[in-house]
Amino acid sequence: MSAKYATTHYHSYLELEKILNAQHPKSGETGKAAHDEMLFIVIHQAYELWFKQIIHELSSVLDNMDDNYVSEKSLHKVEHRLNRVTEIQKLLIQQIHVLETLSPLDFLEFRDYLFPASGFQSFQFRIVETLLGLRPEERLAYNDKPFYLSLEPAQQEYIQQIMEKPSLFEAIQNWLERMPFTRMPGFDFMKYYEAAVQKMFAKEKEQILKSEYIGETEKNLRVTILEKSADYFKSITDPVAYEKYREESGTRLSYQATLSALFIHLYNEEPLLSNPYKILMKIVDIDELFTTWRYRHAQMVMRMLGKKMGTGGSSGHDYLKDTAAKHQVFRDFHNISTLLVPSSYIPDLPADIAKQMSFHFSK
Amino acid sequence: MSAKYATTHYHSYLELEKILNAQHPKSGETGKAAHDEMLFIVIHQAYELWFKQIIHELSSVLDNMDDNYVSEKSLHKVEHRLNRVTEIQKLLIQQIHVLETLSPLDFLEFRDYLFPASGFQSFQFRIVETLLGLRPEERLAYNDKPFYLSLEPAQQEYIQQIMEKPSLFEAIQNWLERMPFTRMPGFDFMKYYEAAVQKMFAKEKEQILKSEYIGETEKNLRVTILEKSADYFKSITDPVAYEKYREESGTRLSYQATLSALFIHLYNEEPLLSNPYKILMKIVDIDELFTTWRYRHAQMVMRMLGKKMGTGGSSGHDYLKDTAAKHQVFRDFHNISTLLVPSSYIPDLPADIAKQMSFHFSK
Amino acid sequence: MSAKYATTHYHSYLELEKILNAQHPKSGETGKAAHDEMLFIVIHQAYELWFKQIIHELSSVLDNMDDNYVSEKSLHKVEHRLNRVTEIQKLLIQQIHVLETLSPLDFLEFRDYLFPASGFQSFQFRIVETLLGLRPEERLAYNDKPFYLSLEPAQQEYIQQIMEKPSLFEAIQNWLERMPFTRMPGFDFMKYYEAAVQKMFAKEKEQILKSEYIGETEKNLRVTILEKSADYFKSITDPVAYEKYREESGTRLSYQATLSALFIHLYNEEPLLSNPYKILMKIVDIDELFTTWRYRHAQMVMRMLGKKMGTGGSSGHDYLKDTAAKHQVFRDFHNISTLLVPSSYIPDLPADIAKQMSFHFSK
Amino acid sequence: MSAKYATTHYHSYLELEKILNAQHPKSGETGKAAHDEMLFIVIHQAYELWFKQIIHELSSVLDNMDDNYVSEKSLHKVEHRLNRVTEIQKLLIQQIHVLETLSPLDFLEFRDYLFPASGFQSFQFRIVETLLGLRPEERLAYNDKPFYLSLEPAQQEYIQQIMEKPSLFEAIQNWLERMPFTRMPGFDFMKYYEAAVQKMFAKEKEQILKSEYIGETEKNLRVTILEKSADYFKSITDPVAYEKYREESGTRLSYQATLSALFIHLYNEEPLLSNPYKILMKIVDIDELFTTWRYRHAQMVMRMLGKKMGTGGSSGHDYLKDTAAKHQVFRDFHNISTLLVPSSYIPDLPADIAKQMSFHFSK
Repeated sequence: MSAKYATTHYHSYLELEKILNAQHPKSGETGKAAHDEMLFIVIHQAYELWFKQIIHELSSVLDNMDDNYVSEKSLHKVEHRLNRVTEIQKLLIQQIHVLETLSPLDFLEFRDYLFPASGFQSFQFRIVETLLGLRPEERLAYNDKPFYLSLEPAQQEYIQQIMEKPSLFEAIQNWLERMPFTRMPGFDFMKYYEAAVQKMFAKEKEQILKSEYIGETEKNLRVTILEKSADYFKSITDPVAYEKYREESGTRLSYQATLSALFIHLYNEEPLLSNPYKILMKIVDIDELFTTWRYRHAQMVMRMLGKKMGTGGSSGHDYLKDTAAKHQVFRDFHNISTLLVPSSYIPDLPADIAKQMSFHFSK
Repeated sequence: MSAKYATTHYHSYLELEKILNAQHPKSGETGKAAHDEMLFIVIHQAYELWFKQIIHELSSVLDNMDDNYVSEKSLHKVEHRLNRVTEIQKLLIQQIHVLETLSPLDFLEFRDYLFPASGFQSFQFRIVETLLGLRPEERLAYNDKPFYLSLEPAQQEYIQQIMEKPSLFEAIQNWLERMPFTRMPGFDFMKYYEAAVQKMFAKEKEQILKSEYIGETEKNLRVTILEKSADYFKSITDPVAYEKYREESGTRLSYQATLSALFIHLYNEEPLLSNPYKILMKIVDIDELFTTWRYRHAQMVMRMLGKKMGTGGSSGHDYLKDTAAKHQVFRDFHNISTLLVPSSYIPDLPADIAKQMSFHFSK
Repeated sequence: MSAKYATTHYHSYLELEKILNAQHPKSGETGKAAHDEMLFIVIHQAYELWFKQIIHELSSVLDNMDDNYVSEKSLHKVEHRLNRVTEIQKLLIQQIHVLETLSPLDFLEFRDYLFPASGFQSFQFRIVETLLGLRPEERLAYNDKPFYLSLEPAQQEYIQQIMEKPSLFEAIQNWLERMPFTRMPGFDFMKYYEAAVQKMFAKEKEQILKSEYIGETEKNLRVTILEKSADYFKSITDPVAYEKYREESGTRLSYQATLSALFIHLYNEEPLLSNPYKILMKIVDIDELFTTWRYRHAQMVMRMLGKKMGTGGSSGHDYLKDTAAKHQVFRDFHNISTLLVPSSYIPDLPADIAKQMSFHFSK
Repeated sequence: MSAKYATTHYHSYLELEKILNAQHPKSGETGKAAHDEMLFIVIHQAYELWFKQIIHELSSVLDNMDDNYVSEKSLHKVEHRLNRVTEIQKLLIQQIHVLETLSPLDFLEFRDYLFPASGFQSFQFRIVETLLGLRPEERLAYNDKPFYLSLEPAQQEYIQQIMEKPSLFEAIQNWLERMPFTRMPGFDFMKYYEAAVQKMFAKEKEQILKSEYIGETEKNLRVTILEKSADYFKSITDPVAYEKYREESGTRLSYQATLSALFIHLYNEEPLLSNPYKILMKIVDIDELFTTWRYRHAQMVMRMLGKKMGTGGSSGHDYLKDTAAKHQVFRDFHNISTLLVPSSYIPDLPADIAKQMSFHFSK
């Protein structure tokens, strides 16, 4: 169905000659065409189209943040584009429902033809992970090989180049570190925060001890957990303790960036902090959605192959399930919730500071 | 990032050289690249990939039905593949959420470059509609031009060829017409059905008249509606009346096919009717999902352009909203519900017939 | 399974004694219990729970806006809570999938017992519509009766009370009317806007006339549409013309509010306008989602009953489909898109004004 | 807004007096009402409504299976109702999006009031798990206490009673064990199956060894994995080996039930096996959807509380994540995929058997 079109005809604009002539099932070449191989091809092509779009958005986000100063207009763009990434991710998850219409038996009809190809070889997905900030040392090995061995030399080089620039994790960390809010002369944030933490723990302990509905053993258990929790809070009020904790726990986010993120959470209703807060929420969304996608993907592989080896030679299900747990770039931003205290326990910002954090339009 | 791969590497298998090198935003060619044009291209390419898959499934469904006899194994396949079409349609609807992250103002940045292209020019979507059974005379004109004028001659010819073979509507109608169930010597279905209809109307009328909660005027209104409804039922018990009704109402489904569909609904628990019933439900699903997609699409265009003219020259929103209402191929299958009566009002099938509709495995 | 719990046990906190003892299918009382009636009860109860939550959110939104001045913190809350409403609406739409697992035949098993109850009698849904700003005169009559006749006197009075306070439509209109942006001494917005409109039309006309791909007749058609469109723009540059247009077209939004909404769209990247813009997007989302819900609801009724009369005596499907088209409160906010021009056609704000629309944090 | 209604008014039918008067936020009783506590109550009530519906469906499914013989009509009902359970589960997952509109800081405003209540105390969810077939010894302890300690004595007794009847796992296992297909005189299934397995392994090994694209080390690795896999297949061809494997691996499904499930997969296109196959797919869906729900729930708790202790005293996130991995009742049915071989490797059924598995309608 080839046809010549004017320059901006729908078909030429979308380059459908390429897009729609890129499906050649292997099963038809040497034997009986397996009806369902087409679905397998089309769905993976759709994934790759969306990965291209995600890369387009993340690159633009990094361009807007890779700076000594991030303007308000840039923040606006960053939030908008990260939000688009999350909408695309929801689609990626939904696509799994379509793939699940492929029955395990129907998959076996063409599985042999795929050997030794593997979704693990997706170059674009490696780029996405790298742009977000996943580091080589955090990656799970696949078939005991470092991930880059599945890439061509030119691709390895390209990944290397990306890693030389700040990833989204690093760009956000740098931006948080530059923020002055927890070190302002007129407002000793850490003093108030420490007092709030004390109050929270005291109240929670009192509540446990005076409760009529739980027994002595459980009271002791809960108090023990509570005290362990208190230890953790101590690390946040002391940079040296934090560094020790950071090393032991594998935490990545720096002390100063953690404090700024905490401040943004606690005072997120101040207009100046509205977009920063939304951005911190969005990166947690992105992590959650990729985790869900990997997890659903693992479920789907289990349903398709059981304990059979994947075409790429991996125990597909286990690899995917493990990456769901381990390849979480923004885990430390989830953990900010651990540090939160009820907003009624911390004071309002002094009027002069609050004023600077809002608008004063007076035309 | 071009790279040479072994035959069944992920990248070569998916022909990513084509897929990922088919995005060339127009706005970048002559002026400042509009960031969001990439999304516009990618999402439409994803739509076209999925249209290709839908065509693949519908063609296979028609191959399995285009016959004087549809085997049970074929029915199994038909149901399975129609189900896949519905899962893909859910994805098409979800994609609109992604497109809605494009703001009206951002769209204006590259809208001029699209002129005079239009989604109306999608050849594959015309194929989908034609395979389902939409007939040229039912199509809404677009800019007062018949739809085929937006197609190249080779494309028009291709559509013409498809129309010469039975569409899904016709294949299903033929299959229903061949069914013997409403004309079996041992079971006068129509007699029982007529009695059930009488009983249903009598009971409903009694309930209205004796109700303490609605007034005289409303009682009269309801009885009038009920009687009009009874008229409609008469058409189904008399082939001549049906033909008259069919002509006046624009109904497409033949008398005999309507009766078979009714029978399948009423006795859907008989094992033999299990798959036929599911297929009748699936085609209604397909209609509903395309209607929802067109409707959501219309909403999205309204949000993007308001009352502005579309790049293809149409009042985009109105055209789409009208097709949502009018381009429903399987409307007559929705209407079977009108004819249903409570299953307690119709008799069980005679034992010998019921036995033939079930399994008797005795190894 | 009654059990006594401590004060804040999960079961007592959630008052599950009430929630889980409120399902008494009618079909079981006098005849054979219809298995599926339980689903019918539970899903409608779930709808009512969510309506209660939507009312809770909308009431809080109105409390935050019903004022001579809306603070930035209030805007933050308004946006957050409207966003929650949209997430709940997505759930309402998803619930229809569950209801569609009820087959038309199974529904007939208990339909008689519902008579003459009807979803039209939902008091809470009337409250939601009223809080959003749907006015009695815009409502479709149901069975030729004004909607309030289906309510008890105490309920009618309650709705009356709500109508005496500003609805969401009015609160947002008031807030937009108070905005000074289109009437600032240092920046004659309307002059620049008019020039941009002229430029846009001139360019579009030129593009049509010089195109090689469309014929003479279509060129003329497109130019005619374009000129009609230009007429519409005139109404926005002249308050008197606007009032005339408003009356003829059934537009509700005032002239000044329309201008402010337009300004917010065009300069949405200014930090001060970030939340206002999001709020304008959210109310359009809310409209779209309720419209989709009504539309899907209409589809579902068609599938369940066909052309049968609803238990409340209405032609259920038609009523719902018509409300989907007509009960759109924020239609005028969709239409702002009609008025947009490419942002490159309008000038940046003067530095002193732009400065006032941003933050100047300098601790 | 109390009002007296006629018997089948919408409000009385749905018992809205109970449903809508069951929300009493604790935060308002002794202090400042926290706006968001209402959402917390309403969403958990919606969960409990849906749990009630799931129990209604599962109980009916068990009534239809708990027998020495499951009729075809019963299978039809079983499949239909399990399908409804999966649609409800999709809703449960979607509800998490709504709960995620509650910010961690806003949750802290009323978290203290919930102490020591916990979602772990949901009695209905324990019933759901028990009906599916989760056994006490497989449950993760919560705070080192067996799960039943969180229930009232009357509730423990009720759970005990349910456990005395077959769960869904057991009902399906019994049904599979009764099937004669793998032990039919005219067709030695196991002989053909063993040959197919040999062929599959031989082909896969050959493909690995002759591949030009993977190195010697990886070839060896892959062959080793393949051979381990072959060991697993041996267990299925020998009842004694299977019992040993079953004990060591914690597999629950009996030998004979496993063979029948395998047969159903391999010959799922035979009409007689169409519904059994769909039922086997549905129980895997149910497992997957509950797993996804628990997993998303765990993510949400992490986002809300970080590493803080849950109100019920547990490390909420870890408990939920662990149940996602461990509380999978139908895991052995996922694993059937491991045993599948390409359908071209096994012979068609002999004509006389195939005939018995199909319909022969001849009126």
